[in-house]
Amino acid sequence: MDTDIRRLLESVRRGQTSVDDALMQLKTAPFEDIGYAKVDLHRKLRQGAAEVIYGAGKTPRQIVGIIETMRKNGQDRVLITRISPEDAACVAQCVPMEYHEDAKVGIVGGMPEPDGIGRVVVATGGTSDIPVAEEAALTAEIFGSEVVRLYDVGVAGVHRLLAHMELLMGASVIVAVAGMEGALASVVGGLADCPVIAVPTSVGYGASFGGVSALLSMLNSCASGVSVVNIDNGFGAGYLANRINHMEVRQ
Amino acid sequence: MDTDIRRLLESVRRGQTSVDDALMQLKTAPFEDIGYAKVDLHRKLRQGAAEVIYGAGKTPRQIVGIIETMRKNGQDRVLITRISPEDAACVAQCVPMEYHEDAKVGIVGGMPEPDGIGRVVVATGGTSDIPVAEEAALTAEIFGSEVVRLYDVGVAGVHRLLAHMELLMGASVIVAVAGMEGALASVVGGLADCPVIAVPTSVGYGASFGGVSALLSMLNSCASGVSVVNIDNGFGAGYLANRINHMEVRQ
Amino acid sequence: MDTDIRRLLESVRRGQTSVDDALMQLKTAPFEDIGYAKVDLHRKLRQGAAEVIYGAGKTPRQIVGIIETMRKNGQDRVLITRISPEDAACVAQCVPMEYHEDAKVGIVGGMPEPDGIGRVVVATGGTSDIPVAEEAALTAEIFGSEVVRLYDVGVAGVHRLLAHMELLMGASVIVAVAGMEGALASVVGGLADCPVIAVPTSVGYGASFGGVSALLSMLNSCASGVSVVNIDNGFGAGYLANRINHMEVRQ
Amino acid sequence: MDTDIRRLLESVRRGQTSVDDALMQLKTAPFEDIGYAKVDLHRKLRQGAAEVIYGAGKTPRQIVGIIETMRKNGQDRVLITRISPEDAACVAQCVPMEYHEDAKVGIVGGMPEPDGIGRVVVATGGTSDIPVAEEAALTAEIFGSEVVRLYDVGVAGVHRLLAHMELLMGASVIVAVAGMEGALASVVGGLADCPVIAVPTSVGYGASFGGVSALLSMLNSCASGVSVVNIDNGFGAGYLANRINHMEVRQ
Amino acid sequence: MDTDIRRLLESVRRGQTSVDDALMQLKTAPFEDIGYAKVDLHRKLRQGAAEVIYGAGKTPRQIVGIIETMRKNGQDRVLITRISPEDAACVAQCVPMEYHEDAKVGIVGGMPEPDGIGRVVVATGGTSDIPVAEEAALTAEIFGSEVVRLYDVGVAGVHRLLAHMELLMGASVIVAVAGMEGALASVVGGLADCPVIAVPTSVGYGASFGGVSALLSMLNSCASGVSVVNIDNGFGAGYLANRINHMEVRQ
Amino acid sequence: MDTDIRRLLESVRRGQTSVDDALMQLKTAPFEDIGYAKVDLHRKLRQGAAEVIYGAGKTPRQIVGIIETMRKNGQDRVLITRISPEDAACVAQCVPMEYHEDAKVGIVGGMPEPDGIGRVVVATGGTSDIPVAEEAALTAEIFGSEVVRLYDVGVAGVHRLLAHMELLMGASVIVAVAGMEGALASVVGGLADCPVIAVPTSVGYGASFGGVSALLSMLNSCASGVSVVNIDNGFGAGYLANRINHMEVRQ
Amino acid sequence: MDTDIRRLLESVRRGQTSVDDALMQLKTAPFEDIGYAKVDLHRKLRQGAAEVIYGAGKTPRQIVGIIETMRKNGQDRVLITRISPEDAACVAQCVPMEYHEDAKVGIVGGMPEPDGIGRVVVATGGTSDIPVAEEAALTAEIFGSEVVRLYDVGVAGVHRLLAHMELLMGASVIVAVAGMEGALASVVGGLADCPVIAVPTSVGYGASFGGVSALLSMLNSCASGVSVVNIDNGFGAGYLANRINHMEVRQ
Amino acid sequence: MDTDIRRLLESVRRGQTSVDDALMQLKTAPFEDIGYAKVDLHRKLRQGAAEVIYGAGKTPRQIVGIIETMRKNGQDRVLITRISPEDAACVAQCVPMEYHEDAKVGIVGGMPEPDGIGRVVVATGGTSDIPVAEEAALTAEIFGSEVVRLYDVGVAGVHRLLAHMELLMGASVIVAVAGMEGALASVVGGLADCPVIAVPTSVGYGASFGGVSALLSMLNSCASGVSVVNIDNGFGAGYLANRINHMEVRQ
Repeated sequence: MDTDIRRLLESVRRGQTSVDDALMQLKTAPFEDIGYAKVDLHRKLRQGAAEVIYGAGKTPRQIVGIIETMRKNGQDRVLITRISPEDAACVAQCVPMEYHEDAKVGIVGGMPEPDGIGRVVVATGGTSDIPVAEEAALTAEIFGSEVVRLYDVGVAGVHRLLAHMELLMGASVIVAVAGMEGALASVVGGLADCPVIAVPTSVGYGASFGGVSALLSMLNSCASGVSVVNIDNGFGAGYLANRINHMEVRQ
Repeated sequence: MDTDIRRLLESVRRGQTSVDDALMQLKTAPFEDIGYAKVDLHRKLRQGAAEVIYGAGKTPRQIVGIIETMRKNGQDRVLITRISPEDAACVAQCVPMEYHEDAKVGIVGGMPEPDGIGRVVVATGGTSDIPVAEEAALTAEIFGSEVVRLYDVGVAGVHRLLAHMELLMGASVIVAVAGMEGALASVVGGLADCPVIAVPTSVGYGASFGGVSALLSMLNSCASGVSVVNIDNGFGAGYLANRINHMEVRQ
Repeated sequence: MDTDIRRLLESVRRGQTSVDDALMQLKTAPFEDIGYAKVDLHRKLRQGAAEVIYGAGKTPRQIVGIIETMRKNGQDRVLITRISPEDAACVAQCVPMEYHEDAKVGIVGGMPEPDGIGRVVVATGGTSDIPVAEEAALTAEIFGSEVVRLYDVGVAGVHRLLAHMELLMGASVIVAVAGMEGALASVVGGLADCPVIAVPTSVGYGASFGGVSALLSMLNSCASGVSVVNIDNGFGAGYLANRINHMEVRQ
Repeated sequence: MDTDIRRLLESVRRGQTSVDDALMQLKTAPFEDIGYAKVDLHRKLRQGAAEVIYGAGKTPRQIVGIIETMRKNGQDRVLITRISPEDAACVAQCVPMEYHEDAKVGIVGGMPEPDGIGRVVVATGGTSDIPVAEEAALTAEIFGSEVVRLYDVGVAGVHRLLAHMELLMGASVIVAVAGMEGALASVVGGLADCPVIAVPTSVGYGASFGGVSALLSMLNSCASGVSVVNIDNGFGAGYLANRINHMEVRQ
Repeated sequence: MDTDIRRLLESVRRGQTSVDDALMQLKTAPFEDIGYAKVDLHRKLRQGAAEVIYGAGKTPRQIVGIIETMRKNGQDRVLITRISPEDAACVAQCVPMEYHEDAKVGIVGGMPEPDGIGRVVVATGGTSDIPVAEEAALTAEIFGSEVVRLYDVGVAGVHRLLAHMELLMGASVIVAVAGMEGALASVVGGLADCPVIAVPTSVGYGASFGGVSALLSMLNSCASGVSVVNIDNGFGAGYLANRINHMEVRQ
Repeated sequence: MDTDIRRLLESVRRGQTSVDDALMQLKTAPFEDIGYAKVDLHRKLRQGAAEVIYGAGKTPRQIVGIIETMRKNGQDRVLITRISPEDAACVAQCVPMEYHEDAKVGIVGGMPEPDGIGRVVVATGGTSDIPVAEEAALTAEIFGSEVVRLYDVGVAGVHRLLAHMELLMGASVIVAVAGMEGALASVVGGLADCPVIAVPTSVGYGASFGGVSALLSMLNSCASGVSVVNIDNGFGAGYLANRINHMEVRQ
Repeated sequence: MDTDIRRLLESVRRGQTSVDDALMQLKTAPFEDIGYAKVDLHRKLRQGAAEVIYGAGKTPRQIVGIIETMRKNGQDRVLITRISPEDAACVAQCVPMEYHEDAKVGIVGGMPEPDGIGRVVVATGGTSDIPVAEEAALTAEIFGSEVVRLYDVGVAGVHRLLAHMELLMGASVIVAVAGMEGALASVVGGLADCPVIAVPTSVGYGASFGGVSALLSMLNSCASGVSVVNIDNGFGAGYLANRINHMEVRQ
Repeated sequence: MDTDIRRLLESVRRGQTSVDDALMQLKTAPFEDIGYAKVDLHRKLRQGAAEVIYGAGKTPRQIVGIIETMRKNGQDRVLITRISPEDAACVAQCVPMEYHEDAKVGIVGGMPEPDGIGRVVVATGGTSDIPVAEEAALTAEIFGSEVVRLYDVGVAGVHRLLAHMELLMGASVIVAVAGMEGALASVVGGLADCPVIAVPTSVGYGASFGGVSALLSMLNSCASGVSVVNIDNGFGAGYLANRINHMEVRQ
């Protein structure tokens, strides 16, 4: 953005751009206002190769509107998270969208070839954590990462995890998804030597308090190299994992 | 206690005990009132071989008074928990008491020969959990259990724990003491097949919230056979471990 | 498991097992991967006589699949917890399963003869706590314990509890199930001299906070020998009670 | 107060009081403003026979000032709560005050003859609850109640409580003071048929959370006739107990 | 109950009752066990003139069963709380029961003549608090208190409250029912000189946290003579108010 | 109100009003009691130009009743908040009411001409915060403020906010509505120099805890000039914004 | 700031400022970096007439350094909050500062003449709330408001508050400071028709939870026109009160 | 580690290692047990170039012992976190250690040359967050990262942050350290396109709840690419930042 400002200032200095126009550009360029949303069009340049729509609380009509604004501006690949099967069916009537029911994720424009520096491993403690894990995996994939899924390897049967040591040791980034006591992140963090992104899930009952138990457990991890995202935030973890997995490429 | 009532009723029926005396006995027998405390003298019969004094909030003078009331009534072995070094020094001037500074525990009457059905393993996640673990270990020992200590085997280095599989598999009861994310209980619970008593500790900072993180983690353990006591309650865990370790003997 | 490693190493040393095979065995033996779950087949050897499926969040089809994998591997007795009447009806069409609606528990393979060292008493504070208590009782029974049910003996009418002193004094283990103020665990813990497993329930309203009040109450029990499991975790309590009730047998 | 307004209006109607004077009286009568406090002088008429000063956060000088303003206005009996030994010593140099160190309570003007309709029983679960209990007992006494103290009768040894059934059954009001799991209130509430005022104390550690566990337990009491005051609020309980104990007198 | 024991012991001494019979009587007398509940039949003698059934979580069939057991034992007046309109309709088909939909309360046996020492005032902060207030009012009435309702007098319009000063000053007991910030209890407590029972309600949104805000506010009331019951516990408040309102009669 | 009392006292002094009448007036004037509510009729004089009905928990019939009582007393403009589309449809059959479905707000009597000292800017962090923002905006408008809406300017794209600096700098009051991390209030507070009213919303999931995260964030704002209202309390913010926006007019 | 950008752009267009210089100015103008702090020098222009230093966590040396940087840049009037008596004494040796021990506030440059549109009333519930109230009052004064203090008018004696109706009705803004149940804000909010800023204080004990009880109470205020700042944040309230009190002047 | 097992198995197969020796090696290799700690010596190989000692709760003697064990085993560079100035002075008498008082960090063996793929930017919201930030910066440096410090750029003055856009855009990883409302992470996350590690600090008062406010804010960040570590966990953030900053090198 800094370069943009400099370029604009140069243009003003050369008299190619009037002051009023420059002021206008500084203000309006980065997004298009479609009433119920300000669609960020600079974001692809600034932050990655695909755009994301958080589907919860938006009508299918609004989602379609945002997708179309994006495509109109050259953004062909779109990830829609937290979209219900019913809404997805509505959207799919207007836009070619592939829907993953487990993860409640819709994908427009298909998956790219992976071009990261390694593989992202997405692991879960149990079967019930899979929807969140899939949200993470699909997110990493749409941004260009190869993902290996390693599900139901919770710490109550630590041998299931040890059986995949090679996989863990070779990972570029690991996303550890777990509810209940959330200990997976610590054990994985102790075994592996790559960044570990922990995702607490709301799986559990009673004193799991909708994921708080797992969240606290992960924040207090005695293993180094572990950081945490919000409860059930598969998207956030997948997005960050992909970003880390593209470190060398972007430098 | 039921038998006592029956015996008393028989005595009343035979005219050996008057109604008023019987009423009095029903009321006053089980404890001696020494003003600031009602010392429970039936407890040895009902619940175990030693008596316990919770030292926190009691003056050395009160502690000595309770010990003396016990000894006068034939209770020679006494465990005093949560007693500061300063108070312990005061008490030790009046009563022969061995003091364990780490655990803040005083022991009157020495340790008995172990007579349990097996060994109690007391494990900790880190070095800072040792004081709580020692309270547990000493408690189990004074009630007659052999105790094996296994310290600093937290899950961030799960190989340290696996190196002691034989010990864990051979234990009669395991006491798992851990702060921070408290994952030790789940991993141990998954590896071992004996009862596991989890003790969350207040070790940690920030979102450990004085042991709440470890407590929730342990309550949500996905491993079966795990139960939990209060934060830092080494005594409670040691007491229960010993009780379980004497199951066959008492039946 | 340690013995298994030793045996494997011996076999390698004798040249009977190749290194690659040994490595493979170390990794794959303990479970069968059926896609949505890793069914643990060593668990019977390691931890008990029956296998458990946590039904919540699993489809009837998945449950049937796991049961069949188990039976194929010689595991005939299966406990399914937290399964709704509707799902239970589906499962029962494929597998002969007895369903207990109160406890939301399904049982495949029938109940074994009790072979524990004594009787497990399951007590509740009120009528509303019975579903959780039944989950505990059925769990203890399927693993081989004789269970006595003692329901609606809350502390607000302490005479109801005292009337069953003989039962409490003769128990091998007591499971105390209570919501609201959860005081049952403390009173029972003070009366009995066996291990007491406290189960807080979500019964109550307002400041019971879905079982938190009972949970805290039980964790703070001033009675010794009491430990706690998660809110509404009848299964965990029954499982642990049975384990303790088989202490002498397994030694 | 209503009567006062009527009397004042009558006086205005008869021309004996000017409108401005009436307005002034309506505003300034009920208290005297001494800068750092507005001393309520009507309160004796409206609410009881003694005045109370909450000592915490006030300097000895301020406390003396308030006492003197009261005495100047005919209020001879004063209760000062939460005053440290050091501050009490300072105050006692200026005003004849009896100090109770346990309860951190000062009393000016001595105790009155009890004139309530019965006896207030103040019971505690343990020894450490005594300071709060004493605050309650002294408060009830200074307002004119006879108080019976029944300390260290916690529910973990329910026989200690049953031994005093007569006392509990004959009480006019019971104040139940307990920390940790706070079950005393429920058990007492189930045994007695008079109003029970429960006082949670901050006694305990770990998951007692400074009295929250006892507070929740008492709020969720399954016994009828139990109400609760703030953690450690012995004064509030004693004040209310006395008020109830004077019901017939005031009607 | 003490007298009962004495009488029984006398009978044993005279040989009129055998020891076994006495033991049996000590155990079984106070309640009748009807499987899903232990109906307390001594309670009328010990605690009041009517019996209460907590309807939530009980089937209509169970409720009818308990009512019939009571009536069979001479308990004609019954209060059923927290019973839904649907369940009430079912019950009313078997037992003559008057249903108050607002309060979700059923009454069997009609209201008695009031015989308390004064009037119970039930006040609410707003219109939405009325259901809880009605539960309190009906409870006090069925146990024999005259009740005056004073609804929608919240502190944001303090003049509405002041307009009823006479009523408040003349009350025997005041039940203050309020949600949101719960300040009604403090203002009423400052104006009146009788016991005030505060009932926080779950009325509100956002940071009212289901009644926690009002609960904390009431526990921290700076007015003396205020005690608190559980959130939405109209029954508990009405029961206690009635008990206090019968102080002189029962002495 | 003070003036009213003075005028009344004058009237009493002159003999124009009897004492009893005066007493009655003091008590009954400020509201009309229509059974389920005490409609405040003095409020217009005391607090503003329109009256507000909190619709949640009131039946359409009750709402109509209150509106009619108001109109009968000359209060023509009424705002009804938190009224569902279904209830709104019912009300609209009896009273001419304009309904805003987004905000769940009904308006009787139309919008007045704005007469404030400036413009109120209502800004939101995201699209999902709009319903709460609309409640705020409509409230400010019905009381006479001009409102500018600035939606979807959350801090994750701070350039969207900076693009409207002129608007923010020229505002009389800013209402900042945001869920999730609620940072909008701080950033706006740092940029603008007018009072900022922060409204946390329950938008979010997981550790947003129904708006608690945003609430805490806003309370801890490091920017000066920011104050906070309850979660989702658009009405409160709009009401206060309007009040501030009329400061000069009312002085 | 917008104007600054425009002016800068004009200068660039005219060739008077080089592009690099412009870029530099855009970046460095608004503050001076003195190592441990970035002193904001534009703030006076943007936000008010005095600058504030948050003293907590800063050394006297750092505080002096910041003051001197300010004065060097023409900022003569400085408010230092949360500075201990010891640190204040140190600072006062280097800079002429008036210290208010109650409020822990230091003032450099003296108080200005009040020039607001009315008077700010600062009211407290009790004596212990005065330090926070003084922080608010002094803050409002240094920014140019006339302040009236009204202390110890808590709702438990609502007549003390009513006695000052005239003062409340005539206020421009009211700051309501209260701990414990925090009801003052609601009662004041119901009586007055100006903006009310509520400040919860940490005064209280037990379930006041360090001010949380008062905070929740204030956030849930049923009175309109009330907003809330952080616990003990007297500064924030005084700052905002002053800002509102200067509305007409700044327009 | 997998390779180690394979190598060991090969050695066993060739008869070069006996079974017992192999079993022993599997168990004891990775750490040295020095009584109070199990020093992990494989960690350098597995996880990084330096070893870390968590100083809190360890005596200077223990710290020296661990350092010496490390150095004896060839680990020359050691980071000691959370060590008080007093303890640091003790340690420095035995081992050459450089102490950073601000961060409470000790460094043995000096800093290495940076060899990461870019620069780590450590930013703070305020001056008081610097100690935590320094812990992060020094940690990243000792593991081989170049670190740029950007302190006191909180969002209440967002221009201070914008002035360093170039720095933020060019960073390899950003560590955002902030207390209070913790909004820095969101704003930075929105501006930058590299991984952002958010560190909530316990800076603040009142409703900051020791860092909980900032923690929740960061977890709920609406910016993508942000993950969170424990409150005040500067070490964890620095460690992870360095790991990410070495992604390309290690692949």
